Amino acid sequence: MSPKYPDKGFVRCIEIEKPVLGNNTSDAQRLEQALKKELGSQGVKIPLYLLKTLPSFLRRWDYKARAVLFKDRQSWRLVALVSPNFIEPDKIQSHQVLGAAIDIGTTRIVIMLLDLESGQTMGETGFDNPQAVIGPDVLARIHHSNQPGGLDQLQKLVVDAVNENLSLLCREKGCETKDIYLVTGAGNTAMTHLFLGIEAFEIIREPYIPCVNIPDTLMAKEVGLEIQTHGLLFLFPNIGSYFGGDLIAGILFAGLDKKQNPCLMVDVGTNAEIVVGSGDWLIACAGAAGPALEGGVSKMGMTAGPGAIDRVTIDRLTRKVAVHTIEEKRPVGICGSGMIDLAAALFLSGMIDIRGKFSRSVCEDRLVEEAGQLSFVLVDKAHSGTGHDITLSQVDLNSLTSSKAAMYTILEVIVKNTSDLEFEDLETFYVAGTFGSFINPDSAISIGMLPDIDRSRFQVLGNSSLGGAALLLRNPSAFDRIMEIRQSITYIELNVNQEFMNMFSGAKFYPHTDRSRFPSVPIDSA
Amino acid sequence: MSPKYPDKGFVRCIEIEKPVLGNNTSDAQRLEQALKKELGSQGVKIPLYLLKTLPSFLRRWDYKARAVLFKDRQSWRLVALVSPNFIEPDKIQSHQVLGAAIDIGTTRIVIMLLDLESGQTMGETGFDNPQAVIGPDVLARIHHSNQPGGLDQLQKLVVDAVNENLSLLCREKGCETKDIYLVTGAGNTAMTHLFLGIEAFEIIREPYIPCVNIPDTLMAKEVGLEIQTHGLLFLFPNIGSYFGGDLIAGILFAGLDKKQNPCLMVDVGTNAEIVVGSGDWLIACAGAAGPALEGGVSKMGMTAGPGAIDRVTIDRLTRKVAVHTIEEKRPVGICGSGMIDLAAALFLSGMIDIRGKFSRSVCEDRLVEEAGQLSFVLVDKAHSGTGHDITLSQVDLNSLTSSKAAMYTILEVIVKNTSDLEFEDLETFYVAGTFGSFINPDSAISIGMLPDIDRSRFQVLGNSSLGGAALLLRNPSAFDRIMEIRQSITYIELNVNQEFMNMFSGAKFYPHTDRSRFPSVPIDSA
Repeated sequence: MSPKYPDKGFVRCIEIEKPVLGNNTSDAQRLEQALKKELGSQGVKIPLYLLKTLPSFLRRWDYKARAVLFKDRQSWRLVALVSPNFIEPDKIQSHQVLGAAIDIGTTRIVIMLLDLESGQTMGETGFDNPQAVIGPDVLARIHHSNQPGGLDQLQKLVVDAVNENLSLLCREKGCETKDIYLVTGAGNTAMTHLFLGIEAFEIIREPYIPCVNIPDTLMAKEVGLEIQTHGLLFLFPNIGSYFGGDLIAGILFAGLDKKQNPCLMVDVGTNAEIVVGSGDWLIACAGAAGPALEGGVSKMGMTAGPGAIDRVTIDRLTRKVAVHTIEEKRPVGICGSGMIDLAAALFLSGMIDIRGKFSRSVCEDRLVEEAGQLSFVLVDKAHSGTGHDITLSQVDLNSLTSSKAAMYTILEVIVKNTSDLEFEDLETFYVAGTFGSFINPDSAISIGMLPDIDRSRFQVLGNSSLGGAALLLRNPSAFDRIMEIRQSITYIELNVNQEFMNMFSGAKFYPHTDRSRFPSVPIDSA
Repeated sequence: MSPKYPDKGFVRCIEIEKPVLGNNTSDAQRLEQALKKELGSQGVKIPLYLLKTLPSFLRRWDYKARAVLFKDRQSWRLVALVSPNFIEPDKIQSHQVLGAAIDIGTTRIVIMLLDLESGQTMGETGFDNPQAVIGPDVLARIHHSNQPGGLDQLQKLVVDAVNENLSLLCREKGCETKDIYLVTGAGNTAMTHLFLGIEAFEIIREPYIPCVNIPDTLMAKEVGLEIQTHGLLFLFPNIGSYFGGDLIAGILFAGLDKKQNPCLMVDVGTNAEIVVGSGDWLIACAGAAGPALEGGVSKMGMTAGPGAIDRVTIDRLTRKVAVHTIEEKRPVGICGSGMIDLAAALFLSGMIDIRGKFSRSVCEDRLVEEAGQLSFVLVDKAHSGTGHDITLSQVDLNSLTSSKAAMYTILEVIVKNTSDLEFEDLETFYVAGTFGSFINPDSAISIGMLPDIDRSRFQVLGNSSLGGAALLLRNPSAFDRIMEIRQSITYIELNVNQEFMNMFSGAKFYPHTDRSRFPSVPIDSA
């Protein structure tokens, strides 16, 4: 999945024809000709700020320059002209040409800094989306954006944080924000609107209309990004209120649009966002998979961080529980992947039954009554980092059961009912998202969350939103792919009808009422 | 010559499809669709500032709006959305949509304010180009622009003056500069560069290369124009260092590019700029006609203003001189058109000979010796407004002779030698420029400055540069015409060779050595 670098990138060395008597071609026209020759394209607009000093720079640089460009759906744009010399003869100034890719997540924002000329990654940094102080989710933030000054406040929160972290990252890598000429970003539809300061409240109000699906390329300073004064910002387009640019970036990064055979990509989170298809067709849908998978709702749930239990095994004979925590700190909670591992281990060891209910007889003293709820003690207070037991209540487990059932049902609907495929027809099953990176496919299959296909077909994409945004910075041709992806996707509204509910009911069992669908899950666990 | 209003203008009433459930088309897309339908064109970019509040405005205006647009060589641009109601229900706010056209002359700047919806002219104002404090001509100003801070200073001078006068004009007409959405301007190549703050010194240095020939449409605020924050500025393109946007605007205004039969347009000034052609072809050339025609060099010369002698007659029998002055003030000098009248009257009354020399015997006591020069007393000090005689010296007259000869020779070269036409083949002979407006064709023909064709073929264009700029504001389709004019013009470098000098020598006579060319000029004058 490492990004390729097939086309020549956004920085090009050009040589401009020198002027001669008897030819009234202007400097600007000769520059345009050189760019046309380099790009094989029509009409490159030269911004006024470059025109102002073009005559003297062309002559100082002996009619050579590095052109920093961007290509959007309209045409190629000239962002800047940089000295043809990486280091000036006086050896004082160097001229790097950098880009930054941003994953604008609701919860977390990740920035990658890269060299636009070599395509090399220079560094990466991540931080929590500071809009969380307004509200943890999109809904709360959009409601706030509708208050006087709310939209500006939300935009400022995220843009300021990006500026600060970008500046820190640059300092750490020994470069300067003024050398960043291009920024690409991908986020869901709401985050995209809030990042740009565009009214977002119609997204959540019937008939759920985003203001914009394809934001144009902007001057980065228009939204307050502190990079090169004339640097550009491009945010990935959405398809609708529930299908954002982050997913388009993911499809681009996974290369779904170039596949010969059907593949599937799922981004697991509060919403399960799923795309099935190949170079010929793409079908997408999104559905609420339930918050249990994100670890934000269950009592002991937490996002993946130090001390979070991310792996759980239970010996099927002794029923001895072993946990692994992130950074091997004392356990303080359990993250999404740990939750799936735990449920799988509980099921495979017979500690929960096929309905997902704790078996008192098997769990024995691991089950306690807590605030009127039956809870499973995963780590006792003597071994936890909190001084309290780390437990999983039946209620939390029910929530996970619903989530995994919803996920499986949505997969079933889109693959079987909509695409008329079997899970076995999928060449590759991409799991995207930070959370997805940590899922143990065996566990997810054991609980019936993911289909029981050959494990080698599962491929973890990591932060595919960031990956797609970075891919565009490296490959000008990706822009057309983005627009083609947008065009070729058929977005399916999940129809929660009786048939769906029947499928969902079957999927609420462990792994499923139809055991034949999960041949690799040990039969004795049921 | 009154501008026509064939196409629908830059302000369009549009109606946007209302959103419904099950259609994830964004507000921006539905607006784009409405614009495409209205304009029959592809892709209209919506600026970020409009997107930000698009959802609430669309809903407040019940999905109707007036769209303020501009069309340049790239595509249609959306400048603003204005309330569909000219006067809001609260009757407090009104929403006019105005445009301003500017003739950016080296000497004088003229601004026309117009209503973009009706196309009606609301007012006009003119003022001296304040760059004159730096230098009277283009050369001096370009030299100054090459000094540190010089370019900024020159730009600021002209832009500040435009802002100030535009603001005064608006106040006078009861409207506001914030309601001006589009500004078009036309000037010569150097003035265009200086207005935009673009380095201009290569224009006057071999090989005489302008920085830019086709300035893109700009945000007006990019150059400091104080109109609507998001208003646009478009300056007419040049063809080269010596063929500016003012002339392109003139061709557009005269409609040369739509003529069936060849016509000629001449803009008389320090440079004679001449275009011959029709819808099929256009040939242009420019040449120094000498400063005598602008009235800026001869001792008593002045620009047309109160007290300037603009008409002169001399009774051929009594040789009594009668003068007319602008605003009928006491005479203080003589302007260009007065100078031509005077030379014609002197020649027709035999007071100068065919070589353009004063005849002592005919002039008698009207000739005086002044500072070693023979001078003709046009108005004696008793009748002048200066307390001194108003005189025309032999040296000044020689200068006029050279100028008129240069003008005729250039006309001869472009019409006869280059276009292979006779002057009689010209359907219309347009005389452009403020100075041109006042020329008496009979006088100009009598001295052999203009060819001896039927007087009805002469047509005065007035300020054709301003006229062309205003025409574009009224007719979106004019943009394509401008680009076609640029493409179809063949620019001829005047080759001052032996043949030219021979033609010039013949033209230095009154009216010409070849009298047969001027059959309508009374023969007894020679």
